[in-house]
Amino acid sequence: MNRIQAEDILVRVSLDSRLQEGYQGVRLIMREILRGKNVPLHDISRATGIPVPAVSAARRELERRGLLSRRSGAILTEYGVKILTTLGVLDTLRPASSDRYVISDSVKKLILEFEKLVSERPSPDYSLDQSHVLSDTCFKRVMYFHENDGLEGRDIAILGDDDLSSLAIAMFSNRFQLEINSLTVFDIDQRVLDFIDSKCKQFGLNINLNEINLIEEIPKQHKNMHDIFITDPPYTVQGLTRFVNVGGEMIRENTGGIGFVSYPNLRPTDNSVFFENISSMGLSPQELIPGFNEYVGSQIHASRSNMGRFFVPGGIKDFGKIFSDRIYTKSRNT
Amino acid sequence: MNRIQAEDILVRVSLDSRLQEGYQGVRLIMREILRGKNVPLHDISRATGIPVPAVSAARRELERRGLLSRRSGAILTEYGVKILTTLGVLDTLRPASSDRYVISDSVKKLILEFEKLVSERPSPDYSLDQSHVLSDTCFKRVMYFHENDGLEGRDIAILGDDDLSSLAIAMFSNRFQLEINSLTVFDIDQRVLDFIDSKCKQFGLNINLNEINLIEEIPKQHKNMHDIFITDPPYTVQGLTRFVNVGGEMIRENTGGIGFVSYPNLRPTDNSVFFENISSMGLSPQELIPGFNEYVGSQIHASRSNMGRFFVPGGIKDFGKIFSDRIYTKSRNT
Repeated sequence: MNRIQAEDILVRVSLDSRLQEGYQGVRLIMREILRGKNVPLHDISRATGIPVPAVSAARRELERRGLLSRRSGAILTEYGVKILTTLGVLDTLRPASSDRYVISDSVKKLILEFEKLVSERPSPDYSLDQSHVLSDTCFKRVMYFHENDGLEGRDIAILGDDDLSSLAIAMFSNRFQLEINSLTVFDIDQRVLDFIDSKCKQFGLNINLNEINLIEEIPKQHKNMHDIFITDPPYTVQGLTRFVNVGGEMIRENTGGIGFVSYPNLRPTDNSVFFENISSMGLSPQELIPGFNEYVGSQIHASRSNMGRFFVPGGIKDFGKIFSDRIYTKSRNT
Repeated sequence: MNRIQAEDILVRVSLDSRLQEGYQGVRLIMREILRGKNVPLHDISRATGIPVPAVSAARRELERRGLLSRRSGAILTEYGVKILTTLGVLDTLRPASSDRYVISDSVKKLILEFEKLVSERPSPDYSLDQSHVLSDTCFKRVMYFHENDGLEGRDIAILGDDDLSSLAIAMFSNRFQLEINSLTVFDIDQRVLDFIDSKCKQFGLNINLNEINLIEEIPKQHKNMHDIFITDPPYTVQGLTRFVNVGGEMIRENTGGIGFVSYPNLRPTDNSVFFENISSMGLSPQELIPGFNEYVGSQIHASRSNMGRFFVPGGIKDFGKIFSDRIYTKSRNT
């Protein structure tokens, strides 16, 4: 069995059980069962945020197809585990703490290594709204991605990576033996790409690098190719909308995916327009955490921005060319 | 000085400093300074979620008008404190813990009293999508409201109150000496209103009660009258949209306000439509907390729903009649 076949089975389970969360929902349910062993229906529903009747229907369908059996709760069959393995989902350890703001000692060690690794990185280009998050934030993000099924077996697109999230993800995954399917960085700044490239060579990391201007129509080969997009876009409504739109276009049509978006405290009207834009594209807000990200000396926003997690349906189209200029804060002010 | 004059001063500060967060933003900034004493600019920005230059402009304007003076940080003048007092903002105690999920012993005692008080309340009418939250949740909510400037000196509208949040708010405010300006319950269910009424009489609480069908156009005297709306609406997109819309209409035009909305895990497309609806009304999502609310035996949603906090601009209009039927889950299924 290859990955496409495994995905196809999950897609069919979602169709036959009419699970609107689709592939992502079935995967979340199975992941929860893998981690919990004998998990009662209600616990699955709570952990996944999918209503009980929907989880129940999916469970029946998983049972009918021999991916799952029921004892006291739900448990995956060997076949079910094999499918998850094919999709790259193996990790049965829950995050060390239910409090996502606590950083364990082993992660602290990793952060020190990361700081050494990135000490000579290029300085922020403010004309591109670059601004570095603290290393702690970088790893808090990575843990948050993993907590929300954003790493294992995933094709991950990072839209703009002056924060060097790609290196943090690679280091974290190596340390905790998580297999990522692919990790791709898209950036306009060749300095950032060169730096990541040099570290990849030095430490044998596997990160795909693409120089690209995300304001322009993106090449077809990047669309419909990823499960996860991660971005900390330029801080204008146009920039935010455009980057999220491109992220959406990159998500695979048959499986949908998840978007992790760092965004600033916009003025209320702007924030409202931003959410109207992205929900009219079809993105579904799942969680918004104020002040999640902390930056090195980002004065305007008091060094903080928010984290948004979105369910992204497949088939998101170009939202239009109206956002193609005035993306960066600087261009707006001039 | 009366409240209208005090509000007017804050509105003018927001206009003269071009603070898009308006009255609510100036109030938040002053509240933060009152609580913190000598608060550095960046801390105010972090705590309020308003960017530094905007806080800085508002601070200058507050200084110019003699509401604030600067020593090592910002500090309110006697006049500034007087204005806040007029608006009912007095409490300088921060929530006992920065972790909003921890309930202190004094609140635990209050919860036990509440449970006794409400032990004979009417059972949920499922045809109206009623379903009671746990008493712990009820008070976790109240603490969350206070944390976010939702209680002191406020005119509060509760849209549907089978959870008896009004009683919890009244008890909490009495216990911690917080003065609420007014507390009004709107409900279609006379049983709920009668029950709250009987407890008000028994314990000398001051809660306004209105029997009203929120599906229909609401009487003019309820519009443009409140600072805060709180709701846990019927669990359809139509129901959610309609209740939030009515809540928006109740918010005062000159000051804007805050909406606290408990909402379920909708299917992604529905969730996306819900957010599109309410952001196109002008609401600005500030925080979404998955699984915040826990219910007594609400089977479909695994006894959980989410908490959303929204900035609400003044002047929200009726969103349209398209949502006037099929509000309740039951009516949709038939």
